Formats: sequence, structure tokens, C-alpha cells
Amino acid sequence: MRPTRLEAFSDGVIAILITIMILELKTPGGSDWTALADLGPKLRAYVLSFVFIGIYWTNHHHMIHMTDRVNGAILWMNLHLLFWLSLIPFGTAWVGDTGVAPVPTAIYGSILMLSGVAYYILETTIIRSQGPHSRLKAAVGSDVKGIASVAMYAAAIALAFVNPWISESIYFGVALVWLVPDPRIERMRHE
Amino acid sequence: MRPTRLEAFSDGVIAILITIMILELKTPGGSDWTALADLGPKLRAYVLSFVFIGIYWTNHHHMIHMTDRVNGAILWMNLHLLFWLSLIPFGTAWVGDTGVAPVPTAIYGSILMLSGVAYYILETTIIRSQGPHSRLKAAVGSDVKGIASVAMYAAAIALAFVNPWISESIYFGVALVWLVPDPRIERMRHE
Amino acid sequence: MRPTRLEAFSDGVIAILITIMILELKTPGGSDWTALADLGPKLRAYVLSFVFIGIYWTNHHHMIHMTDRVNGAILWMNLHLLFWLSLIPFGTAWVGDTGVAPVPTAIYGSILMLSGVAYYILETTIIRSQGPHSRLKAAVGSDVKGIASVAMYAAAIALAFVNPWISESIYFGVALVWLVPDPRIERMRHE
Amino acid sequence: MRPTRLEAFSDGVIAILITIMILELKTPGGSDWTALADLGPKLRAYVLSFVFIGIYWTNHHHMIHMTDRVNGAILWMNLHLLFWLSLIPFGTAWVGDTGVAPVPTAIYGSILMLSGVAYYILETTIIRSQGPHSRLKAAVGSDVKGIASVAMYAAAIALAFVNPWISESIYFGVALVWLVPDPRIERMRHE
Repeated sequence: MRPTRLEAFSDGVIAILITIMILELKTPGGSDWTALADLGPKLRAYVLSFVFIGIYWTNHHHMIHMTDRVNGAILWMNLHLLFWLSLIPFGTAWVGDTGVAPVPTAIYGSILMLSGVAYYILETTIIRSQGPHSRLKAAVGSDVKGIASVAMYAAAIALAFVNPWISESIYFGVALVWLVPDPRIERMRHE
Repeated sequence: MRPTRLEAFSDGVIAILITIMILELKTPGGSDWTALADLGPKLRAYVLSFVFIGIYWTNHHHMIHMTDRVNGAILWMNLHLLFWLSLIPFGTAWVGDTGVAPVPTAIYGSILMLSGVAYYILETTIIRSQGPHSRLKAAVGSDVKGIASVAMYAAAIALAFVNPWISESIYFGVALVWLVPDPRIERMRHE
Repeated sequence: MRPTRLEAFSDGVIAILITIMILELKTPGGSDWTALADLGPKLRAYVLSFVFIGIYWTNHHHMIHMTDRVNGAILWMNLHLLFWLSLIPFGTAWVGDTGVAPVPTAIYGSILMLSGVAYYILETTIIRSQGPHSRLKAAVGSDVKGIASVAMYAAAIALAFVNPWISESIYFGVALVWLVPDPRIERMRHE
Repeated sequence: MRPTRLEAFSDGVIAILITIMILELKTPGGSDWTALADLGPKLRAYVLSFVFIGIYWTNHHHMIHMTDRVNGAILWMNLHLLFWLSLIPFGTAWVGDTGVAPVPTAIYGSILMLSGVAYYILETTIIRSQGPHSRLKAAVGSDVKGIASVAMYAAAIALAFVNPWISESIYFGVALVWLVPDPRIERMRHE
């Protein structure tokens, strides 16, 4: 399988994921401002997940762009990543429905954390397949940012039982860190 | 990232958006003409949004076609546009459910307006990245049509609280203006 | 716009349409054979629409394959076709829910008929854009089959009020006619 | 039709199928661990179907990669396969809703079995179109693995009425067999 096909399929799944979340944004019961206000928590959850999936899309694209060939392990580790990403709409809807309760917030963080782990596993699998002169390895180094994000999610999961708003802040913070232009990715782009 | 990938992903999201709106067109409770008649407002809302998304698809395509390379800012401003477009199915369903009530009609207009603003921001971001001899700038000029549309949406939002049907007429009017063959876009096509 | 992009977008919409219909096939209330039996009418409606959308997909592909360039009129007539096709999941669900009642059966036929008309308009628009030596015109001739199908749908709509099963039979019959290998399309393929 | 278009359309449908299953994973009524625990059976059903569709995606890709040209029979046998695959989300939701009851488990197995049969028919159709020196025939031989899987599904369907957990185990077993790197497919890849 060529990397382009893997990318096209992944892009398809990611495009669907980022879009079907809107189906969870049910129309309010009424037609006044109060009805709209109730949508607040759902909309906030939607925005956050939209940004996270957007980040995964761009990073995934860059990673596959540096992948020379796809073997069975890469293919399945990619599906493994898509599996965890596919749970984001569920987690988003649950957090939105319950107005940031501890368990849903922790579960949402778990989905993000496992997506991050899956991404790291995929990255490692590609690097291993490329051998000692891996282009991807040269670009991402030890992937401190990816590992730190996973650690932040783990902290957020635990803190959800103290106060889920702390966890929400951490999720927003991690998203912001990834949104800020990343010299590592820019370097990848210019090679 | 090459423009073709950005376009393929955006096309995917737009194709999904234009199609999932139909999922909001629930089957009527009964099986007679009365049941169908109740669908009228929903179907009208669906047609309007279908046309709007169609217009964005064609314009987006032409814009990306004149984009030489994609940087991080373009990529995120494109996701920003897709975000607002992704709210159109929600706005459509709400207007359809409530039979053109003031608040839903104003919210629908806000989604259209913010989509228009996001489109303009994306356009400006691409033009800035292209420098003084921007092909896109040469083609769209000051984008009077885009700016005028945003102003019309703003007027429609305010007028929704006078009479939402005025707003609906404005939305249809703006759509018609974009449907009429546009010499600017035709010129872009032939360059 | 190149024909390949128009085709990719249309393929995306058609792939989504053919797939989201399954979302209307709600899980039965129970877990025994009786519960499954109630799904019969819905499954039959699904199969029929799956075949119709499949036919449109293959024919649309062949038509676009013979299209040299895409102008604004072709683009919008293509969106017009996609609009009518996008109503098929709605019609399918309504026929399935009501167990082949007259009005839903007639509405389903109307959607098929208007899809057929939209296809014909698109075909004519492409032929006109190609001028007197149109490749597509040479391949489809007067498109007797397309016109006859539209006439059959019109008859089925009227007959739905006599007995909707007659209409259902006509829909199945038209689908069968298109499924049988078509020398015209085969000729197109080998040119 | 070129194989690449058939593949792109099939990839689109498969990407949608693997993703919309998540829409069946409704948010729990509550916001505590108990609510989450109730999701267990649905999540297990989702994981299994995700893996099955992933397997079909990779195998389908390899098969089409070895297809030289697409005729009408291949095209329709491919749509036939997509039809059975499209029922997987329905079967998944029903098994998940009913907590592995006999009839839903048997129906789920029937969908897998008929998908397997459809895959085999498509394979045979491609091989026949390639003539005596078929590349695909050389690669898959008698497709013992495919035929054995269908036989396993048939056994699982019957055993669902003894104990549906036996059937579930068989489904997981078959999935595992396909997940283990397959020398046949690896050989195909390196030709």
C-alpha cells in the first residue's frame, strides 16, 4: 500500500469524524435565547474536539508525508489511531450532555490520552520501519511534545475527580500549545 | 502541505456537510399529504442551505486553485472556515423545526455571516502569503461581493427581530446573487 | 474546474448518500425473529435505493468521463442532480416506515423522477457545451432509456393511488433494466 | 472505469461505514461509572466491527491493486460487497443493544458470512476477467482462508441458538486469524 492511499483513507475518516460531531448538536426544544443558552456546554465541547481533530489531521498528514512505504504494522497501527479518534465524538457528546461532570470529563481525557498514545505508537512503528536513518526520527527527535501531552492528559484524568474544570483547562491548554506554530513541524515542511 | 490535499480534505468535509443535512429531514409521522405539508419549512431551509454550501464549495475550489502553497496560517484559517460551515446543518435544522422564528433565523444568519467572515479571512491570509504579485488578489480585487454579503447577513440578523421573513428573503437574495454567473470567477477560471 | 474534481466531489456525496441510508435502519425493539420481521419493508426499501444510487453512480461516472471541461452551468446542474439524489434517503425511510402507503410511494417516485430529469438536464448541458461533435451525444444518442425511465416513474406516481405495489413493481422493473448490461455504456467504455 | 476510481469510491463507503458506527454509541443517560458500564456490550460490538471493516478495507485494497481493468460485472459485484458491509453497523447496533442475544448474534454472523461470500464472488469475478494467467489467482490460490471464514460464520450462526457467546468467540477468533500477518498478502505486496 502506498502512503497516499493510507493518507486518503485516514483523511476520509478524519473528515467524517470532524463533521458528524455536529449531528450531536441537537436543535434546542424552544426557539428563544434560553433554548440557545442551554447549548453552551455542547458547543464548547464541540469547538474543543474540532480543534483536537484538526490538530491530529495536520500532524498525521506531516507524519505520513515522511513515510516512505507502508507495511502491515503501520497500516494496523494507523487503524488503531483512527479507532481512538473515532471515540472523540462520543466523548464530546457525553461531556456536552452532562455539563462537565467528573466521569465524562475523565473519559474524554482518556480518549485524548489513548489517541496520543496511539499516535506515538504509530510514529514509533514508522520510525522503526525506516531504519537508522529515519527521516521521521530526524524530524521529531524524542517527540517531547507528544509525550508531554499524554502526561498532561493523565494528570487531567486524575484531576477530573477533584474539579472537572481543571481538566477542561488542561485540555484547552494542550490544544493551544499545538496550535501555536511549531518550529519542529515547520522544519519538517521545509525539508 | 500541497493545496491539493487541503482541497481534498475540505471537499470531503463539505460533501459530508451538504449530505448529512438530509438526516435532519425526519420522516413525517403519518403517510398522507398533511404529514408531507408539515415538512415544507424544513425542506425550504434544506434547499437554501444546500445552495449556500454549494456556493462555498465552488468558490473555495477556485480560491484554492489560485493558491500556490499552504502554510500553517492558511491551514488553520481553512479549518476555521470549515468550522463555521459545519454549523450550517444545525442552523438549518433549528430554522426548519421552529418554522422561521426570530431567534433561530438570527442565529442562522450569524452562522452565514461568520462563514462569510471566515472565508474573507482565509482569502486575505492566502493573498498575504502570496506577496505583492498575488494571483488571487488580482482576481478578487477588494472582494466587494464578499464584503457586501457579510453586510447583508448583518442586516438580516437585526431584521429577524422585526420580521424573520425579511431575513429569509435576504438570505435567498444573497444566494441568488452568487448563483448568477460571476464574471470575476469566470475570469479566474480562464487565467 | 477539472472534471476529475467534479467527479471526486460527486463520488463523495454519492458514497455518503448510499451509506447513511443505513442509519435509518433502526435496531428493532426486541431481540427475536418477530422484531426482525418488522424490518422487512425497510430493508426492501433500502435495497431498492441502494441499487438506484449504485446505478446513478456508475452512469454519472461514465458521463463525466466523457466530459472535456466543466463550466458554471455544468457545475450547478451537477449540484442540482445531487440535490435530488440527496432526497432518496428521506423517501426511502418514509416508504419503509409506512409499509408502502400511497403518498410516500408517490413521493419516492417523484424523487426518482426528478433525479432522472436532473440527470437528463445535466447530460444535455454537457452535450451543449461540447458543440456539434459532442462525444457524449455520439454515445448516448437521444437517451431513449433515460427518457423512458422518467415516463415510467411518472406512471408509477399516478398508479400509487390505485395500488402502491404496482408502483413498487415499476421501480424494481426500471432498476432491473438499468442493471442489465447496457450495450450503449459498454460502447462508451471501449471508445 | 479505472480500478483507482472503483477503489476511491469503495474507500469512501468503507471510511463512512467504519465511522458512522460510532453514532450508535449513544451517550449514557447518567454521568457516573454505572452509566458507562452499560456501554460495555456496545463498545465491545463496536471494536469487533471496527476490526472486521478494517480487515475488509486492507484486503479489498490489495485485491483491487491486482485488478487490471474493471468491467460491469466487477463493478456490480463490488457494490454487492459494499451492500453487505453496509449492514454491519446495523448488526453491530442490534447486538450491542440486546447484550448478545441469540437472534441478533445470528443475524450479525449472517451479515459477516454474506460479506465473506460477496468478497469471494468479487474475487472470482476479477479472476475470471483476467483469464488463465490471472495475477490475483496466482496470489490467492484457492483462498482457503476466505472459504474457511465463511464456514466458521455458518457454524457461529447455528451455535448462536445454543449459546451466543460461542458465536461471539468465533467472530473474535476469525478476526484474530486475519489480523495475524498473512504470508499470502505479504507475497502479493512484494510482487
